[in-house]
Amino acid sequence: MNIIDRLKWRYATKKFDASRVLSEDQIDVIKQAFNLTATSFGLQTLRLIVLKNKVIREKLVAHAYYQKQVVDASHLLVICIQNNITSTDVDTHFKNVQTIRETPESVLEPFKNDLKSMMASKSLTEREDWSTKQAYIALGNLMTVCAAEHIDACPMEGFNPAAFDDVLNLKDKNLKSVLLLPVGFRAEDDKFAGFKKVRKQLSDAVIEM
Amino acid sequence: MNIIDRLKWRYATKKFDASRVLSEDQIDVIKQAFNLTATSFGLQTLRLIVLKNKVIREKLVAHAYYQKQVVDASHLLVICIQNNITSTDVDTHFKNVQTIRETPESVLEPFKNDLKSMMASKSLTEREDWSTKQAYIALGNLMTVCAAEHIDACPMEGFNPAAFDDVLNLKDKNLKSVLLLPVGFRAEDDKFAGFKKVRKQLSDAVIEM
Repeated sequence: MNIIDRLKWRYATKKFDASRVLSEDQIDVIKQAFNLTATSFGLQTLRLIVLKNKVIREKLVAHAYYQKQVVDASHLLVICIQNNITSTDVDTHFKNVQTIRETPESVLEPFKNDLKSMMASKSLTEREDWSTKQAYIALGNLMTVCAAEHIDACPMEGFNPAAFDDVLNLKDKNLKSVLLLPVGFRAEDDKFAGFKKVRKQLSDAVIEM
Repeated sequence: MNIIDRLKWRYATKKFDASRVLSEDQIDVIKQAFNLTATSFGLQTLRLIVLKNKVIREKLVAHAYYQKQVVDASHLLVICIQNNITSTDVDTHFKNVQTIRETPESVLEPFKNDLKSMMASKSLTEREDWSTKQAYIALGNLMTVCAAEHIDACPMEGFNPAAFDDVLNLKDKNLKSVLLLPVGFRAEDDKFAGFKKVRKQLSDAVIEM
């Protein structure tokens, strides 16, 4: 697989083939790739909603400027952040490190306390902004993984997160939606598929020193 | 290539083999992959610095909490955002669309004006935050591309951007550094390489509906 060819193949798919559905194996790759996303301090204050239900998605279209890919794609991925990050999250993470790596608690203790202090020093808004940036890493990772796997996708910032949170009952789950990624198969007649990719000249995008 | 195996292989490489250098082909893949990153409205208000020069990097280590990967890696990637986004940037982008796709100006005009209004309605800080999020998409993309290509990398938010901007004369280039990604080859004795990957259970990370 030539990764550059795969990235050239991908584009923000506006029109999906509503009759085609991703296989369980393909969805499993997406789920695993999301969970393997690198996050700051490994805290993973993110959650991925894999939304197949079309009845729910019909309710969401109006809250995404009526962009039909929300409902026509095979699945709608909703990248969410936690509403807050508490010291319990830090404890849970380090417990996980201890279990998986069998690291002695005494070794982890100072790192755990540093991270708790760091988080406590941030305002709620700062913690949210911090988590939101991690969500963008996940988006970047997932777009590239989808391209590698010949899965079409459409990254979307343009939607009403509060309305999404309402329809999906995210408050009850202590989550907030931040990014959308409908995934599936491009429609055969999607005119955007044939458009040439528009990018800066490499010499304008990159500086070598 | 199994992309999940590649993502499992990658880790935040703390200790690089300082004697090994990426080939021109490998650097070319990184440069192209960066330029192919999806950005909001395709505006690409980002720039990638590919820094090989070790004299400059020696000066940067102190501004990255003395983390040696900044200088020991084959190359240091510095993801930058533009200091501002002006209507000229929007004009340049649409000129590019027109040239590459041969789209008539009359078709593009309304989109161009909408984007200019949207950008003008944001404060300078909001425009910076917007660009910064795009930088995180690039980071996510580059980490996955590096993994696919067996290139080791270490994502870093922890450094002093103002000091980096100073050493690299980024003000003159109308840029600000936001993220680092040293890339190269893991040292044979990097103890982190053998550590088991710590991630949430898939059932904790993903919600299916």
